[in-house]
Parts: sequence; C-alpha cells; structure tokens
Amino acid sequence: MARTIVASATKEIVIGFDQPFCVIGERINPTGRKKLAAEMQDDNFETVKSDALAQVAAGATMLDVNAGVTAVDPNATEPALLVKTLGIVQDLVDVPLSIDSSVTGAIEAGLEVAKGRPLVNSVTGEMEKLEAILPLVKKYDVPVVAISNDETGISEDPDVRFAVAKKIVEHAADYGIKAEDIVVDPLVMPIGAMGTAGQQVFKLVRRLRDELGVNTTCGLSNISFGLPHRHAINAAFIPMVIASGMTSAIMNPCRPQEMEMVHGANVLNATDPNCQNWIMTYRDRAPANASAPDGAVAAAATNGGRRRGGRRARA
Amino acid sequence: MARTIVASATKEIVIGFDQPFCVIGERINPTGRKKLAAEMQDDNFETVKSDALAQVAAGATMLDVNAGVTAVDPNATEPALLVKTLGIVQDLVDVPLSIDSSVTGAIEAGLEVAKGRPLVNSVTGEMEKLEAILPLVKKYDVPVVAISNDETGISEDPDVRFAVAKKIVEHAADYGIKAEDIVVDPLVMPIGAMGTAGQQVFKLVRRLRDELGVNTTCGLSNISFGLPHRHAINAAFIPMVIASGMTSAIMNPCRPQEMEMVHGANVLNATDPNCQNWIMTYRDRAPANASAPDGAVAAAATNGGRRRGGRRARA
Repeated sequence: MARTIVASATKEIVIGFDQPFCVIGERINPTGRKKLAAEMQDDNFETVKSDALAQVAAGATMLDVNAGVTAVDPNATEPALLVKTLGIVQDLVDVPLSIDSSVTGAIEAGLEVAKGRPLVNSVTGEMEKLEAILPLVKKYDVPVVAISNDETGISEDPDVRFAVAKKIVEHAADYGIKAEDIVVDPLVMPIGAMGTAGQQVFKLVRRLRDELGVNTTCGLSNISFGLPHRHAINAAFIPMVIASGMTSAIMNPCRPQEMEMVHGANVLNATDPNCQNWIMTYRDRAPANASAPDGAVAAAATNGGRRRGGRRARA
Repeated sequence: MARTIVASATKEIVIGFDQPFCVIGERINPTGRKKLAAEMQDDNFETVKSDALAQVAAGATMLDVNAGVTAVDPNATEPALLVKTLGIVQDLVDVPLSIDSSVTGAIEAGLEVAKGRPLVNSVTGEMEKLEAILPLVKKYDVPVVAISNDETGISEDPDVRFAVAKKIVEHAADYGIKAEDIVVDPLVMPIGAMGTAGQQVFKLVRRLRDELGVNTTCGLSNISFGLPHRHAINAAFIPMVIASGMTSAIMNPCRPQEMEMVHGANVLNATDPNCQNWIMTYRDRAPANASAPDGAVAAAATNGGRRRGGRRARA
C-alpha cells in the first residue's frame, strides 16, 4: 500500500492507509483573501506568520503555501513571492510544506528552496500540465497532488474522474515516478448542488485505494459550499471520507469541530494507538454539554449489563 | 434490501439503507439513573414525560422505553410499570416506540398495549431467549432487535458475532419471521479498551448488510466508554457507521453535536434529498466560528478556480 513520504528540514511524515489522517493547512493562500493578498504584495508577512503558527498549533500535519496574489503577470512575479513565503514559513515552523501554484516557474523556484521533501500542488490530466510538472517531480524526487480533471474540464461522471487519475499515474510511471508519490484529488463536488457528491467521492476514494493503490486528498470544504451551517457538514464529511480510505485533506485546522472529527476518526480507524493522541489532546476537556451529566448518559447508553445481556465489553 | 417498518398510532417509519438514519432515543431508561428509577417507583412520570418531549423535539425518530427499575422480583412488577410508561409516552408523543425489557412478561404486556408497530428490544442468540421472544415477535407481527451474544457471552471475535446474528436470523425464519424484521446489534466494544473496535464494527455492519441484508443498530455511546471528551468520539463514530451501512442507533438525541453528525451524514449519504431537512434545521444557524469569515474560508478552501484548474464544481 502507498506510503507517501513528505519531510521538513528535520521531520518526516508518512501519508498512508495505516497512518493518522494528514491535515494540510490551507490558510496560507491569498486566493479570496484580499487583505492577505494586499499584505503579501506590500512585503508584509505578518498574517502568513500568524497563520503558520496558528495552523501548526491547531494540529496541522503540513502546510500548503500559495503566493498567487492577483498580478498582471504571475509568471514574472509569483516565483519570487512564493520563494520568499516558503522561506518565511519554513524558518518559523518545522512541518513539511505543500508548494501550491499554477505557475510552473513558481513551483520550480519553490522546489529549489524548500527544505526536506515538499509536496507539489498540483498537476492535472492536461497534457501541457503533465509535461511541465512531471519532469520537475522526477528531478526533485518529490510527491505531487494529481487533480482529476483534464482539457475537457471536470467531469460530473466519477468514472471519468477515475480514468483521468489513472492516466496521470500512468504518465508519471513513464517518467519513472512511482504511484506512491502521486496523491490523487478525486475532486469533491458541492453536495448542495449534486446530491450524490458524497457517495461519488466515497466510491472513488475506495477505487483509487483498491485499484491504483494511491493516497488521496481533497479540498475538503468544497463539499459544503452554499449550505447553511456548513462547518458541521465538513465535520460529518471527515469521518466518512476517512472511513472510505482518504488519507489527507487540504482544510482549515483552526476549526476545532473539524479537528475533533479528524482526531476521533483516527481513534476509530485504529491509527491513534491506545488513543494516545486523543487522550493527550482532550484529557482536560469538560463534557460538551454540562446539563446532562456524563455518567448518567453513559450508564443509560450502555443500557446496563443486566438489561442487554452484558452489553458492556469485557475486554 | 431490508425495509423494517415501525409505526406509532398514526405515523409509519421505514428503517432502511436508503432512508434517513433512525435515531432511537435512549433516555427513558432507569438503568443507571437513580433519580428516574425512584420517581418511576413512586408513580411519578414527570421525568419520563419531559424526556419524551425533549427527545422528540431534538429529532428522535423513535423512542426506546425501559421500565427496569431495580426490584426484588422484576417478573412480578416490571410488566405493569412498563405498560404504564408506554401508555404515558404514546399518549404524549406520536413516534414509534421500542419496548425494551429483559423480562419476557413485560415485553408481552407491552405488545398488548403499544399502538402501531413497535420494535421489540431485544432477543439474543441464547436458546432460552429465542424460544421466549421469537413466538411473541411472530404473534404480534413486529420487528425485533437481535443482539449478537449467546450463552457463551459476547465474543471479542467479530466472526463469532456475525455467526450469532446469522443464527438468530435463521431461527427467526423457522418461526416465519422475515429477515427485514430483524435489526441486528453487532455489539460495539469500547475503543479505549479494544483499539480495533471501530474497524470491527464497520466490517461487521457491511457483512450484515451485504450477506444477511438486515438493518442494524447499536448502543452508540458504548464506543467512547472510558475516554475523555467522549461525545466527540460518539460524533465521529456516527458518520463512520452510517458510511458502513448502519441504519439506526440507540442514542441520546439531546446532544446537538451528535445530532448534527446524524443530519450531516444523511445529507452526505443522499438520504436527505435536496438537503431539505438540513436546510430546515440549520438555516438560521450562525457560523460556528465568527472569527474566520465564512466567505474567506470558503474561497481559500476551494483554492480558486484559477489555481486548481477549476476546482469548484460547475454542477
């Protein structure tokens, strides 16, 4: 089974089916964040720094770094800005980074300066993209996020998205890149617009694991786009995709409810041995709802050994 | 696929793989609730009434009713108390009931008075139990919860628990009871004591669905027994068991976080068409974390159409 290795200067992380879910912090990204974009263009990295620290403190496994501020000519300006941003982040926090850009020159410049073994974000199934990005992935011996769309756009048919992912894995093999260095993003549709979006992605992730043996990721909050109280949809989605075999996500680790679901799913998925991380993280947490005493609820819930034929486990 | 029909006086509910998850409210149960037990023995049903109303208001699909107060001779006293409790509950709320007792005479007395089509909770794989309960299930034409333990106790081996469930389904068939009227409880072990408890139950539920075609239930909060911050473990467990095919649970609907995960998993499992129930329930809910504006997070999360090859779905 795929083991995707990423690393910072001193820390190595494995993304894999038997590993804790890999949380890729999404916050260092000026797309849709006008204030952050303006700061970065003004050579002000205070928000970048605070976002880096906050995400790591909140439990991010690695950080995505994107410097795509709106510019007249991204090819000319983005490489230098991405290099600077990566440098600031990796000087501040010791977690593996994801180099996120649609500008090939920016990705290559980032690969030159990033310490350890960063993740490249991303390649698609478009021939032009494959031919630009895969040689860099091979040259720098790094893993890459493979997004399941191509020249024809994003298909609503999950079988087509699977075929695109398979094509990328095969092209990568032609360059000598192993499947374990491809992290497929099967593309998550908004459930509010497409009622089968959840079932599609659960099935796709299982196929990607079982048939291609690859790790997977997604832009997690896409699932809840347009719905009220969307963070609870994200929170419910996390254990479900983890149960389906997804091994990482690009998400906001600063949302406690979502991170609780990551940690809880790790416990339930047997990737948090002896619940050690759970207990360390939550041992001092008061019951969420003080009006219903924990003990009473627990006893009622177990329904009593006497009542239910010894329902409480003897283990 | 199994469609288990339960009903109150006027309302019919289907438990099934294509249905919203069936939440069986657990609160009307004096086991481990000394105050409630004392009240019920004193002919005081105020807590029973308020628990019935609160659970239905919180979204319970049906209510479990247990009158097992500690008594010298439950066989003599429990039938009358259960009949009285069931009567009070069904006069107050119009949801299907689960008649919960380990006393055969109490179950039969409850079946005599319950309106609609109640669920019997429960039978086990013990011969004595099977021979006592299955004739009642046949006579009154009702569904029954089948708990996967027998004379040898609760096996830690999920294959043995599957075999016990299969045995119960086969015995029931001998009485002319269809598999769709058996709701199997595969028994949930505490994850803190047995690290594989989650994976066990996910696999068991899938086998019960695929090989026996039966609906399933569980005492949900058993999974988190002994752990800190246990309601977040319960909350993570809900989407995972629903993703595995579990169709109901005996749980506390008065916990908002757990109910959010039920509603969210229904959306993601395509059993809440057009997200109608979600939107009705949560349309006025403010974002959980006001410090991170929803719009900014959403835009960052989608990572921008430009950046990620048109990641936002066009559906």
